This record gives sequence, C-alpha cells and structure tokens, in this order.
Amino acid sequence: MTRLHNDPSEFSEDQLEGFADLYSDRLAAVPGGVVSHPPREPQVAVVVLGGSGHYPAFAGLVGPGFASGAVVGNIFTSPSAAHIYSVAKAADQGRGVVLSFGNYAGDTMNSGIAAKMLRAEGIDTRIVVVTDDVASAPEHEERRGIAGDFVVFKAMGAAAAAGKDLDDVERLGNLANRRTRTLGVAFAGCTMPGADSPLFEVAEGQMGVGLGIHGEPGIRDEERPSAEELGRMLVESLLEHLPEEPGKRVGVILNGLGTTKYEELFLLYRTVAPLLREAGCEIVDPEVGEIVTSLDMGGVSLTLAWLDEELEPLWTADAYAAAYRKQRAPLESIEDEYRGPEGSAAEDEVVEASTRARELAAEVRAAAEDVAELMRREETRLGEIDAFAGDGDHGRGMVRGAEAAVEVIQSLPEHAGPASLLKAAGRAWAARAGGTSGVLWGASLEAASAAFDDASEELGQEQLREAVRRFAESMQTLGGASAGDKTLLDALLPFSDALAEAEDAAAAWNDAAVKAREGAEASADLVPRTGRARPLAEKSVGHPDPGAVSMSLIIDKVGERL
Amino acid sequence: MTRLHNDPSEFSEDQLEGFADLYSDRLAAVPGGVVSHPPREPQVAVVVLGGSGHYPAFAGLVGPGFASGAVVGNIFTSPSAAHIYSVAKAADQGRGVVLSFGNYAGDTMNSGIAAKMLRAEGIDTRIVVVTDDVASAPEHEERRGIAGDFVVFKAMGAAAAAGKDLDDVERLGNLANRRTRTLGVAFAGCTMPGADSPLFEVAEGQMGVGLGIHGEPGIRDEERPSAEELGRMLVESLLEHLPEEPGKRVGVILNGLGTTKYEELFLLYRTVAPLLREAGCEIVDPEVGEIVTSLDMGGVSLTLAWLDEELEPLWTADAYAAAYRKQRAPLESIEDEYRGPEGSAAEDEVVEASTRARELAAEVRAAAEDVAELMRREETRLGEIDAFAGDGDHGRGMVRGAEAAVEVIQSLPEHAGPASLLKAAGRAWAARAGGTSGVLWGASLEAASAAFDDASEELGQEQLREAVRRFAESMQTLGGASAGDKTLLDALLPFSDALAEAEDAAAAWNDAAVKAREGAEASADLVPRTGRARPLAEKSVGHPDPGAVSMSLIIDKVGERL
Repeated sequence: MTRLHNDPSEFSEDQLEGFADLYSDRLAAVPGGVVSHPPREPQVAVVVLGGSGHYPAFAGLVGPGFASGAVVGNIFTSPSAAHIYSVAKAADQGRGVVLSFGNYAGDTMNSGIAAKMLRAEGIDTRIVVVTDDVASAPEHEERRGIAGDFVVFKAMGAAAAAGKDLDDVERLGNLANRRTRTLGVAFAGCTMPGADSPLFEVAEGQMGVGLGIHGEPGIRDEERPSAEELGRMLVESLLEHLPEEPGKRVGVILNGLGTTKYEELFLLYRTVAPLLREAGCEIVDPEVGEIVTSLDMGGVSLTLAWLDEELEPLWTADAYAAAYRKQRAPLESIEDEYRGPEGSAAEDEVVEASTRARELAAEVRAAAEDVAELMRREETRLGEIDAFAGDGDHGRGMVRGAEAAVEVIQSLPEHAGPASLLKAAGRAWAARAGGTSGVLWGASLEAASAAFDDASEELGQEQLREAVRRFAESMQTLGGASAGDKTLLDALLPFSDALAEAEDAAAAWNDAAVKAREGAEASADLVPRTGRARPLAEKSVGHPDPGAVSMSLIIDKVGERL
Repeated sequence: MTRLHNDPSEFSEDQLEGFADLYSDRLAAVPGGVVSHPPREPQVAVVVLGGSGHYPAFAGLVGPGFASGAVVGNIFTSPSAAHIYSVAKAADQGRGVVLSFGNYAGDTMNSGIAAKMLRAEGIDTRIVVVTDDVASAPEHEERRGIAGDFVVFKAMGAAAAAGKDLDDVERLGNLANRRTRTLGVAFAGCTMPGADSPLFEVAEGQMGVGLGIHGEPGIRDEERPSAEELGRMLVESLLEHLPEEPGKRVGVILNGLGTTKYEELFLLYRTVAPLLREAGCEIVDPEVGEIVTSLDMGGVSLTLAWLDEELEPLWTADAYAAAYRKQRAPLESIEDEYRGPEGSAAEDEVVEASTRARELAAEVRAAAEDVAELMRREETRLGEIDAFAGDGDHGRGMVRGAEAAVEVIQSLPEHAGPASLLKAAGRAWAARAGGTSGVLWGASLEAASAAFDDASEELGQEQLREAVRRFAESMQTLGGASAGDKTLLDALLPFSDALAEAEDAAAAWNDAAVKAREGAEASADLVPRTGRARPLAEKSVGHPDPGAVSMSLIIDKVGERL
C-alpha cells in the first residue's frame, strides 16, 4: 500500500521535485519531466514517457547511455502534449528527437501532437512504440508495452551515445521492439496515493496471468504456484512467442512489479536461468530487479530480448542512469574467475615428507578412498535419516565432500605427507560439499592436519591422538554446539574422549569407535537444540542424527586400517 | 507479503543460488555466502554478514570498492560461525580480514568464534560492529545496527580498495560508526516466506517510531503523518543526536524498508533535503532507495553520516557492487550544468532587423513590461480564483513567466526584431513559469514569432493577425482542449475568431477583446473537461477559469498599445 503523500493530487509533481534535487548533479527538472545535463558531444535525444508510478521507469532511466529526457505524467496517466513538447525541446541537441513509450492510447495521442509541434519548429521527431506484452493481443503491433520498454529505450540510448543518426536510432528501436517479448503475473493489486483500497484485487492465493502494469485484465486467474512452477510457466509461455530468426543469444529481464522482494526474484531466477539454458538459449547480461513497476503491486514479469549482431552491443553497452547503472570498467579491476581456497591449497608448496610420513600418507590415501566408497554406499540411507527432520541431502553432501578430498589427494605429488594431504582434503571438502556440515568437516580436517609435521620421522601415537583432539575441538568451536544437542558431536565426543585417555591410540581406536556408535544410536532420543533441524525439532525424535551416524560410520571405517 | 517460495526452509540458500548465477561474472558462491572475484592487487578483505531478507544487504554489497564477501544467514537469523569462517577464508587475500555487522547477539557470538578460528590459522581478523539506531538504546555503543551498516561497510570497502592496511581499515570503520545515526519508522509488518500472517503488525493508519529491521519494538506508536510531517520528525530527531564535532558535511541515506515505493521516498526527500540545508548541513552524495530492507515491511529510515576529512573521500568513492553502483567517470561525459532551451535561445544569432521591425520591437518590449506589471498586480486575485478548484498557483506562474520574458527581452541587442524577441520570450516563459500553462504560453509565443520576418519592412496588419492565429492554434493543438472545456481557450478563441475576420487587426483589437472578457466571465458556468482541475470539476462551477481570466486581462492590456 502506498502510504506516504502530502496532497495526493500533487504526488507526481512533488516526488519529481525530490528526484530532481537528489540527482541535480546529472539532470535537471523542466516543465513536465527531467532532462539529462547535455553530453559534451551532441547526440540524438531519446525521450521516454509515460505516467508515473512505474519507477525506475521513466525518470530513473535518464542518464549517459540511456534516455536523454523523461516526461512524467500523473500516476498511471499519460503526460500532456505540452509536457512532451517541453521535455523534448529541452532535450534536443540539434540531432533530432525520438519519442518512445509503451503502446497506450493517451501516450500515442499526446506524442503525436507534440511531434507535430516539434517538427513545425524544425526539430526532426520520430516515434517508437513498444509492444512487448504477449498477453495483451494476438498481433505483435497491437500489444501494449510493459517491461520491454527497458530493452527498446536502452537500445536507442546506447545507439545515440554511440553517435548514430536519427534514422539509425529509430530503426534500432523498432528492431529491438520486434525482438522483445514479455509476460507478467500479478499476486496483488496496487493502491493509488491517498486511496483507501487497491485499484484492483487478486484473490489471496491466486495469481492473475497476463495482467498489465495498471491492472488491466489478464488472460486468466489461477492458483498461485511455487516459484519453480511459476518460472517454468513463464519460460514455456514466452518460448511459444519467438520472433523471426530468434538466434540463441537472449537478454533477460526478470522484473519485480513493486512489492515482490529481490530475494523472491533471485529465487525465481534460479529456475528461469537453467530452463532457458536447457532450451538452448545463451543468456546475455541478465537483469533481475525492479525495472518497470506499478506502485505497490505484487507480481513479476519475464522479458526475453532476442539479440542479433546489432542489438547485442546495445544491450551490453555501458549506461549510467539514475536508477540503472552498468559499467564494464570496474569489473576489470577484478579477476575473471574466482580462485577459491581449494585452488590456493593446491598451489601450496608441498614439503618433501620424511620416509615415516610417506608411509603414513599412504594410509591416509587408502583411508580417504575407503571413506568415499563407504559414503557412496550409505548415501541413500543417510539421506533417508536426514529427511525425517531435515532436507534429505546429508548423504549427498558427504559423498561430494569425500570425493572432493580423494580427488585433491590423488593430485598431490608422491612426496606429500599426511599434513599436506589432510590440509588439501579439508579445503576441497569444505568448498565442494556445501552446507554447514561440509564447512565443519573441511575445516576440522584442516585443523587436524596441523598435528603432523611432514618433515619429521617422529610420527606415532601422540600425533594421531593430537589429530583427533584438534578435529573434535574444531567441530565444537566452529559449530557452536555441545554434547546432547543432537549433532555429530554426540558420536564424535564419546570417541575422542575415550581416545584421549588411551596410551596406544591405534589399539584403542576400535573400542572407542563403539562409543561413537552408541552415541549415534542414542541421539535418536534427543531433541535438537541448534542447527537447521530446529524448526522440525519434535519430528526428529525417534530418529538418530544423520551427522552422528555418518561420523560413527567413518570412525569405524578408519579403524579398519589401523 | 512475501509470496514466492519453494520449500520455505530452503528459501535463503535457494535465492542465494539464483543471485550467484546472476552475478557469476563478478562473484562466486562459497559455503555460507558469496565472495567477490579477487582484485588484481591484494586488499584487506571486508566481510559483511547478517541474516537474509535485507537485500541489498548483505550479498548485494559485494563488489569492487565495497565488500569482499558476504555471509548470508537464514531469514533474519545470524549465519553460523562455520559459514562466517568459510566466507572469510575464501575472501582473505593475505592482508587480513574485517568482519562487520550490525550489533545483534547472534552475529556477535558467531563472528567471535569464527575470528578465533581464522586467527588460529594465521589470518589476522578484526571485528567492527555497527550501532547506528538511535531508538534502540541511550548509549551509542549499545545500539543495534540498521541502515548505518551501509555507511560503515562502504567506508571500509573504499579504504581497502585504496590499499589501506588492516589497522587503518578497522579504524576507519569504527570512525564511520561513531559518526553515523539512524532513525526508522514502520507502517506495516513483514511476512516470512511461507507464513500466512505478518511477523508483527502496525495498526492501519498508525506508524511505529524506532522499530528495528526485524520488527523489534520501537519507542512509540503514533498516527501516520503526511510525508512533510514525517520528514520533519526524522530530521529533527536525528539532529538531537549529533556526534562529537559533527561539522557541516553530511552523507544522507533515505532508506526504504521493503514495500515503500521509490516515488514515496523521493517525495519524502523533497522535505528532508531543504530541512537539512536550513539546519546548516551540506548534503554530500545522498542515497535514496532500498539499502537495508526487512522483507516486505513498509517503512523508511533516515541516516545521517557526519563526514570528516577522512570519511568524505570514502563516502564519495567509486563502488561497483551487485546492488549498489557508483562511478564518477560516466558523469564526466556530460556537462556539469543543464543549459536549457532558454540558454540556447539567447545564443541564437539575432538577425539585424529592418527599421520597421525595430519600431515594432519597441512596442513588443513595452507591451511585455506592461504585461509583467499587470500580472504582478493581479497575482493575488488570479491565485484566489485558481484556489477554488486548483492549487492556487496560477498567479505566481503567470508572474514568473512574464518576468522571465521581460528579462530575456532586455538582454537582447537593440537590433533585434519582433520575431527574435517573441521567440526568446516564449522559451524563457516556458522554462521558468512551470506547469502546463507555462509550457502552453511559452510554446505559443514562440509559435507566434514565426509570423514575423525581422529583415522585412513589410510588417503590418497581416502579420499581426497571423501571429494571433498561430498563437491560438498552438494553444489548441498543444493543450488538446476545445472551446467549452473551461480553459484559457474560452477567452482566446472568441477573440482570435473575431480578429480573423477584421480588415484592420489593430483597430478591431479592442472590440475583439470584449469577446475575450465575455468568454472568461461565461467560463464560470462551465464544467472542466481536461487539465488538472478535472478531479475538482464540480467545485469549480460558479467560478471562472483562471487561465481564461488572465488571458482576457493580457489581451486588454496589449490592446492599449495598439
């Protein structure tokens, strides 16, 4: 609900005054809208227009590489011909003007009048209308314009900034429009400033498919689906409306209509992007966020802009509007690819290990392979235990972590000792296994590695006990849990405590492992106090903690080698 | 209301996956969050953290010149120590790590554990806590952190990008925090993904003052005020909480909490900025928009960052995060100041006018001064007529327009003819008078100017009649109104029709002017059909149209000179 206003009838003009003050270093208010401070080299003026209530459209799109001026009407109302004329005249730099807007009757009429006046004064003026909303009419030219405005305006703004002449800017705008398609859905209506109730309503739990940006009727109402189902519907629907010779390269806009949160849009993008890739599309510079809104309407739209050789450089070009900023230069100060701690571990110099250390290293290699094999075998069972009160991915995570450890261990040279192996294994595990338990396993293996000195021949019981102690300490400190919290500690701590008291750690291992198994089984009676299972705490009673079970299995397996 | 989700318990991780895919050209997902691709020159790593649901905070702030990494917990929940450790370790570039977050118990505890682990591995780790919310506690150090996070994180990101060492980055972060103050208000609660009802409620028409970003209780509830009253309350409250030696230079953030529209924020800024300036503040690079949100909460917060010599360059520095991008370079492609059509008109070459044209120009100069004097005299009365059904500014607008015309006319050389004078006068009028009627008067004066050829000695009745015809045609075409719509046309058209039939336009002027006066008076009985008065149409019946009245007055006055 729109809640802040003074005199509602002055809302549009008043908010524009605040906007112009805010961005006075780059644009100026003129009667009816705002105009960019002029470029040092005269360009074709791209003047965009429409009612207000759609921010960032339209005033937020003014700036270098984008629109030269924006005419801003009252809420959801076309600006007057006088205001279009006023802004266009102020924006004109002697190279002609393009007026551009979504296809609505008022905007078309008023722009036509303004264009006539401008031409009478010798200002060459063209009109480019956006018609991207596939839900609004069967014929492309008759459709209304929604978030596709952004694609067409940006293409023309980039073309103008590149010095193209008026004919070219107009032609490229029309080309962008012919290759752009949008479909939107609404979850909730929007409220005009000062009004008590929404302009239109969508029943709770429902979704209006194909609703316009002013609440114009859509194609149908249906039950609001999950984010995944919605993403699939939007992608599949738009792929039914391809332009001629679409090609593979596609600019994507996932637009929030006003009160749909960025986090919700990212969630939706997580479905949309893979589906587009599966369909053979190559996504170019996707935009996810508020681009063309409708006051406080809830909803989203998906736009596909099918790029060709001419349009792609315009779509990817730099722009610096008030509300939309894209620059290539700052990204050149960073590397193209992330090199994670996994990478840097592999690059660590591997010290030449002692004879004794190499013997031990052979055991570590074999044990790691055993563990990975064990986790593959137990993956399903661990997943099932996890699914009682968690998300069922514990088995998968353990397999990924253990396999990553084996892989990096195999890549290390023959002369590596147990410290090098465990350190690299830990980093690889944390990076690949994912989730909290992956980080804990990885960091704790790395912590354990510090118990060994690869250059020393003195590697025995003491170092083994110390490694287990460090491993358990790391698990406790990093995880922030205690015994009895229904975590992997309920298997690990009884084991490490038993081992700490033993004189011969290897000999005592198997007896201590029994304690781990008992602890894992006993965790079935516990109620979880920390970690992700908390909201489902009660549900887990009667089932052991999956992390404790996998811990106990691994302790058993390692024992077989000692 | 948050409406898009799959499994609500996976919301945070799933949305982060979409986010990392979207921005894979500049950052990478690691367990627990995201990390910027590394800078080509190693820097101190600034790792920011908090629960999710606050986008752009915290993942959206990762990028060159800003945060090196962000740890993202579940909705409104601190990330685990394991995840903080994981992200910090991935972000570390060998120059040390700062962990920074708003002052909440969970974040403090988990960061402390993670810092201990990082230090144990030889990674120098510091902690900078943000405490900007003046409503949350009397002592600055005990307050919680809200939108001031942005100021502190940006200061440290800019310092790190400038190559400062760990001690300096930490010190500057703490300095920024000591000089930053925020106060927020909430209009409506927020809903967790998958929940049916909001986490907290604010009664309709009420406002919670000092509410936190997770709905923590505020200072008091009060009736929701107008935008102007709210702006005043926020500014006055924050000016009661100055830091030591505040100075005059202040960074400003007007932050939307989730569903408060950008247009509403601009409206509020229109009050906030002048009040700060009245209080002696110099506003530096203000930010108005969504910076730290709370899911779909309605509300705003105002942050004042009192800059000193060290902080100002950090506040104004370039940054290129996913959701926050600021660059100086693109603005260098445009002029510092807008040169409007007024300016360009004055620069038009003024042709050497004929003797006859100069005589006429003297009449135009005198008439313009008469009209400006008349409008000053009638300003109050025109304002009163306008106030019955409009905003009461018609008199003011006419004075501004007429005075702008006189001023530009006086600046033109002696050899200027009537065409040059009227053209310049029209452009100045449109630019300064503001509003639709200002544009119409300006454009129509300019249209009228084309009736004269300043180089010709043949200037007589025909040109005068043609000028009036062009003036009236422009008013009709540009305004899109017709006779009887209760606009200035109801005075102008009877006059121009009468003049069009006359042989001697000058002689016929005063008789035709009577028609204008009658038309203006008769407009009292009309109901407006177009223009801003429409919502108040009924109220205007019984009062003449103010534009028709001023038109008739000016026609009369010009007649005195013929």
